[in-house]
Amino acid sequence: MTGIRRSALVASALALALILPAIAQEAAPDFASLEAAQSAANAKPGPRTVPGRAIPVPSTASPQLQAMIAAPYRVPGWNADPKDASAWKELISSRAALAAAAAKAVREKLGVSMEATQIGGVGVFILTPTEIPPANRNRLLVHVHGGGYVFGPGESGTGEAIPMAAFGGFKVISIDYRMPPDFPYPAAMDDAMAVWKEIVKTYDPHNVAIFGSSTGGGMTLAMVLRAKQEGLPLPAAIAPGTPWSDLTETGDTYLTNEWVDNVLVSYNGWLKRAALLYANGHDLKDPQLSPIYGDFSGFPPAILTSGTRDLFLSLTVLTHRKLRRAGVEAELQVFEGMSHAQYYFDPFVPESKEAFTEIARFFDKQLGK
Amino acid sequence: MTGIRRSALVASALALALILPAIAQEAAPDFASLEAAQSAANAKPGPRTVPGRAIPVPSTASPQLQAMIAAPYRVPGWNADPKDASAWKELISSRAALAAAAAKAVREKLGVSMEATQIGGVGVFILTPTEIPPANRNRLLVHVHGGGYVFGPGESGTGEAIPMAAFGGFKVISIDYRMPPDFPYPAAMDDAMAVWKEIVKTYDPHNVAIFGSSTGGGMTLAMVLRAKQEGLPLPAAIAPGTPWSDLTETGDTYLTNEWVDNVLVSYNGWLKRAALLYANGHDLKDPQLSPIYGDFSGFPPAILTSGTRDLFLSLTVLTHRKLRRAGVEAELQVFEGMSHAQYYFDPFVPESKEAFTEIARFFDKQLGK
Repeated sequence: MTGIRRSALVASALALALILPAIAQEAAPDFASLEAAQSAANAKPGPRTVPGRAIPVPSTASPQLQAMIAAPYRVPGWNADPKDASAWKELISSRAALAAAAAKAVREKLGVSMEATQIGGVGVFILTPTEIPPANRNRLLVHVHGGGYVFGPGESGTGEAIPMAAFGGFKVISIDYRMPPDFPYPAAMDDAMAVWKEIVKTYDPHNVAIFGSSTGGGMTLAMVLRAKQEGLPLPAAIAPGTPWSDLTETGDTYLTNEWVDNVLVSYNGWLKRAALLYANGHDLKDPQLSPIYGDFSGFPPAILTSGTRDLFLSLTVLTHRKLRRAGVEAELQVFEGMSHAQYYFDPFVPESKEAFTEIARFFDKQLGK
Repeated sequence: MTGIRRSALVASALALALILPAIAQEAAPDFASLEAAQSAANAKPGPRTVPGRAIPVPSTASPQLQAMIAAPYRVPGWNADPKDASAWKELISSRAALAAAAAKAVREKLGVSMEATQIGGVGVFILTPTEIPPANRNRLLVHVHGGGYVFGPGESGTGEAIPMAAFGGFKVISIDYRMPPDFPYPAAMDDAMAVWKEIVKTYDPHNVAIFGSSTGGGMTLAMVLRAKQEGLPLPAAIAPGTPWSDLTETGDTYLTNEWVDNVLVSYNGWLKRAALLYANGHDLKDPQLSPIYGDFSGFPPAILTSGTRDLFLSLTVLTHRKLRRAGVEAELQVFEGMSHAQYYFDPFVPESKEAFTEIARFFDKQLGK
């Protein structure tokens, strides 16, 4: 790319970025001009050229979800670029402190108790709702948290396990697996599998499901792949939410929803850095890191969740399709306007409760008693 | 909006539209500059500001689907603006001639025979596959075609019915309902219901499903609403594909996928004009025109289909969620990179066959014999 072209692009992009928010409050962009420019720019086969524009908050989400959709990009956050291990640790622990405090508040509001313990030598948190209905007494959910294999240590990783316990009436074991910078791949998977091996000794695996979102969704799939490989019992159902099933930038919505998703914003922010930190030189396309490249035959029934603005919408639907092509019973739910994994950020948003209630209904249908 | 601001916007948009395709062939946009501009433009709650950019064809679709994704905007077509009834008729019949020829070729390749007849005074086409498996001998599918309530008269509306008959092994009756400009709302619905009333006299409704995409998806939903209202039997299952369930520009992907979807491109092309022509002054939010505003309780099991680039992705997922909240069994399938309704444009694309095979599997599960 020549310097002149790049300057022109940046100038145009900046001009648009500055002008559009002001315009959006007054009137829609000039359609006739866009119509001509866009038709000209998309008159031949090739990449899709789209114009810069301001996209309003949809009226079709609940008011609470609308507020989440309207929220600014997560800054600092989406483009964090820690330069060394100590900078990573500082970022991880500052975010963990906030998330742990939020998790505590949610536990109290939803009446979920928490106990820290160890299973198979690995730290776990046991989340127990006020009441476990009789049908769920012998059932267990295993949770692997999200956070790009770097965020979510300790209590801060339990955010998603709490509404699942509360809305589903399930006992949940959330795995506090080791993470980079100190413990890159395969530490996280080794820990998750150590817990799984212990659990299937005391629970009938027909009564156990595994779930988790984002990185936790990828790990859920990778755990089933590894259990298959090692001849271990499989869970009776899984709920990989918006799974990070491909750690490379492969999948259409990595690009169509770039700059639209206000949670992850772009693959080329912290996300790519976390992928490389975790892989630690290992092939990103190894199915243990990017389970979309694995063999899904024999997988247990699955329910997948995403949103129309989710950077991982493609990963979710590609995973869903690949499960279906492998003959696996698999359901898909997609929420209007949602960016990445927003359904577990605040369990009091109506769409969040809906998402967890659907997953609970699916588990209830699939699990033995 | 002031004239100066609008000029600046148009100049920027045009500059981007002209520059980006050239850049795309050389290198990715300059991420660091976009990162700064985008973070600044999205630092406060409000509309999402996105930059103009070139989005490559995803490697995650089949080669045949990749070719469809790479295709130019449908020009002339997406922004057609017929000025009077005779201009509409000319456009409709020129498109119909092409579509009818394509449908004939597909029938021959898939071994589906066609018979034109009338049911309840309404023209229909009966599509019959070479072989109907014993389980399907007493079953029937009723098809309502897409085309914005204006396109698809006669044989040209049978495109989607052919792969459904062939891949599912079902007898299909495709309704050639009346359309504008001569016959606006409610002629299309009156015709569809006249056929339905006759069919339930000779077929056990437990053995009958209704399906259709886009406008046909909206009509499928509206037929169930009207059957409920009139106390008629309901079908045993429905497959509203990427349903035009809201004729107003309501739904997030009307905007997030504007300029991305290369089939419809924008609500503000022919689509909006067709909505107004059909409604003929009637309220666009009447549930008979926009069934998303109707009461879905008591609906039969449904399977919905869309794509990640579909302008109607939001309409599809909003309809799916509303069905689920009404307690209806409802499945969702979303295909990578697909624009609006592309799964029925060419039944020889692997994802097309997959979509119809899933719908057939769903019907097989839901219908009596």
